[in-house]
Amino acid sequence: MRRVPDQWLSSILLNMYQRPAVSREEIVRSTQLNGGSVSQALRYLMDSGTILKIGELKSRAGRRRDVLKLNPEAGYFIAVDLETARIRYALTSLVGDIRFRWEQELDFGLGPDISSLLFGIDMVQRNLEPWQQSRVLAIGIACPGMLEGDRLVTAVNLGWERFPLVDKLSEAISIPVFLGASCRAYVLAEQGVGSARNTSNCVYVELGKGIGAGIVVDRRYLEGNRHMAGEFGHITIDPSSDRQCNCGKRGCLEAMASISSIVRQYAKLSGIAALDRDHRHVSEVFEKARRNDSIALEVLDTVAKSIGLGISHLVLLFNPALVILGGELLLGEDLLLPGIKRELANHLPAFWGPPPDVIVTSLGMDIGLKGSALLAFRNSLINADSLKKLTTPLTEAIVM
Amino acid sequence: MRRVPDQWLSSILLNMYQRPAVSREEIVRSTQLNGGSVSQALRYLMDSGTILKIGELKSRAGRRRDVLKLNPEAGYFIAVDLETARIRYALTSLVGDIRFRWEQELDFGLGPDISSLLFGIDMVQRNLEPWQQSRVLAIGIACPGMLEGDRLVTAVNLGWERFPLVDKLSEAISIPVFLGASCRAYVLAEQGVGSARNTSNCVYVELGKGIGAGIVVDRRYLEGNRHMAGEFGHITIDPSSDRQCNCGKRGCLEAMASISSIVRQYAKLSGIAALDRDHRHVSEVFEKARRNDSIALEVLDTVAKSIGLGISHLVLLFNPALVILGGELLLGEDLLLPGIKRELANHLPAFWGPPPDVIVTSLGMDIGLKGSALLAFRNSLINADSLKKLTTPLTEAIVM
Repeated sequence: MRRVPDQWLSSILLNMYQRPAVSREEIVRSTQLNGGSVSQALRYLMDSGTILKIGELKSRAGRRRDVLKLNPEAGYFIAVDLETARIRYALTSLVGDIRFRWEQELDFGLGPDISSLLFGIDMVQRNLEPWQQSRVLAIGIACPGMLEGDRLVTAVNLGWERFPLVDKLSEAISIPVFLGASCRAYVLAEQGVGSARNTSNCVYVELGKGIGAGIVVDRRYLEGNRHMAGEFGHITIDPSSDRQCNCGKRGCLEAMASISSIVRQYAKLSGIAALDRDHRHVSEVFEKARRNDSIALEVLDTVAKSIGLGISHLVLLFNPALVILGGELLLGEDLLLPGIKRELANHLPAFWGPPPDVIVTSLGMDIGLKGSALLAFRNSLINADSLKKLTTPLTEAIVM
Repeated sequence: MRRVPDQWLSSILLNMYQRPAVSREEIVRSTQLNGGSVSQALRYLMDSGTILKIGELKSRAGRRRDVLKLNPEAGYFIAVDLETARIRYALTSLVGDIRFRWEQELDFGLGPDISSLLFGIDMVQRNLEPWQQSRVLAIGIACPGMLEGDRLVTAVNLGWERFPLVDKLSEAISIPVFLGASCRAYVLAEQGVGSARNTSNCVYVELGKGIGAGIVVDRRYLEGNRHMAGEFGHITIDPSSDRQCNCGKRGCLEAMASISSIVRQYAKLSGIAALDRDHRHVSEVFEKARRNDSIALEVLDTVAKSIGLGISHLVLLFNPALVILGGELLLGEDLLLPGIKRELANHLPAFWGPPPDVIVTSLGMDIGLKGSALLAFRNSLINADSLKKLTTPLTEAIVM
């Protein structure tokens, strides 16, 4: 059989991601490939078992059309979400469904060494049957901090400076490794399986240990000149504040509204010494506020105001259709979201009209894993080796 | 002769804009059209006189290559820059060189009526020889405020609300009219003939009666969801300020740093009543500062701080390679720019590295006219009628 161009295959596979059922006609329409190319590529992908026929539609004229979907078992990914407090791992199907999870706790400022990362990856891989091992297409990793050339990681909170993560991992394992900045992975997840599927312009705001933004302009992730766009946590939200940020400045949004800042503010006002585990104690502050503790309510009111003001800058500068909030701070959604929305509205001029929708991610704590899996999927489509695996017939496919 | 596809013509003409001399080979490279298409289109455009051969290059192998440029006299544009205090008009050549100017003063809040606009356009057209009249390809207009569908203008400072400017003008004149938001026109000018020619990510900041930003992401002008991106003047720069903005909010950057705000601040601190003509009096404040008047220096120090802080938000969120400043506030460049740069640097975290270049536009007060001419040029290339004029042989071409 004549080899089908990689680009047709990629285009069709990307298009069918997470769609429960599509027809050839729909694929032609959305890929803008011509009908003949689509038929040829589909035959190839169906022969290899990567695309499944799951039914037939009959038109009134009696013509039959196949109903198709991606075979979730045609390939697997290992998704890794490197947070600052823990690493989450998952084994996912081709379309990012999570089949198995694993977690490692980290100490703040102590980046994981390669051996612990390899251990985590191995723990996930053990859940594959031997015949599935060869179908692991790639490892996708969501990383905090800054990435250079998709290979070097600088993350203050992990203690990494220009750490060659991809090279280090590749010395030990032969599966391709793809890195993406955390916010980029989150945005990918929202675009692929979350709330941003039908939005050309949106902003994802991460509110947790760190604060950052992933910005989508005309469906594309905003990179900026040196891949540093979206440093939302370090805009000076209160020039008169003396509150010190990890970055060295004062009055940054992150210094006013991150998890550790909330815990510190509460501790200071209430005279209680702050403890180590920030993420446990922010829940305590939330609990106290729910029980009408006035200090907790005061702290969260200030936090919501800072975040709302910050988001008003994003709205006025980017004019997004949608703002999606994620991160551990949303454990206090009931306490924070009304204030954030109120403050956003206060900081928009009358001529602006109504503010954009501000919603909380529907992907919860899985957002980083979903994003890493999608990162790995997309990169696999432009990787000749991975694409070859996807077009090699499955000898023993399990059809779900 | 077989008609050449419009797209080839547009692509070549756009590519040759403002380039003093190019070869066929360079056009092939930069348009990515194939060689045969380029030759065919060039022959057509040379026959019509729109492209001129201005010399020959001889290669060592003895092969001759034509050196080409756009004929500036192949078409004319009328460029209109609708400011809030005046309207500037210009007659430009095909490539945006200004041949004649005209200006009308406006009273604040009183939008020009159509008859005065038509009068201004007529004043410009009178400078064409009769045989040139038919070569006026389009009118380009740069507008303050907001545009809907490139036709309806809402500009508080002009007193216009959803004013159907294009339709009104088109009732009286047959030349196509193209509108663009002021900041969009300024950015076009910077990209076409200014400092942003080689930059994929940059920000233009207008500092004058109003404050706004035109943002370029991957060489494209950022529109946002409802064409409202870049509302830089209305981000709340000082939440604690009670300074009222025209938009109804308090503490907007425009309320802290526009021309009228400077005049008002000076008047308040010095006890002098403010007069009407803001743009005259801001120069007085600058003059006083140059003579070490402490009140003027204090006012300008606060203004520079507000602008620098605002620009730090733009830098952290968009990560531009370049920030270009324009507008009447730059009459005080010597007084303001050092403070703006200092404050920008203060609000960037250490990990960010050096701030981007912050420069003042090299296009001066012509920026709006250059931008409108380029707006008209680009729109003419996708307008069948204008393109037809450009491919109709010039019977009496003046070659400059």
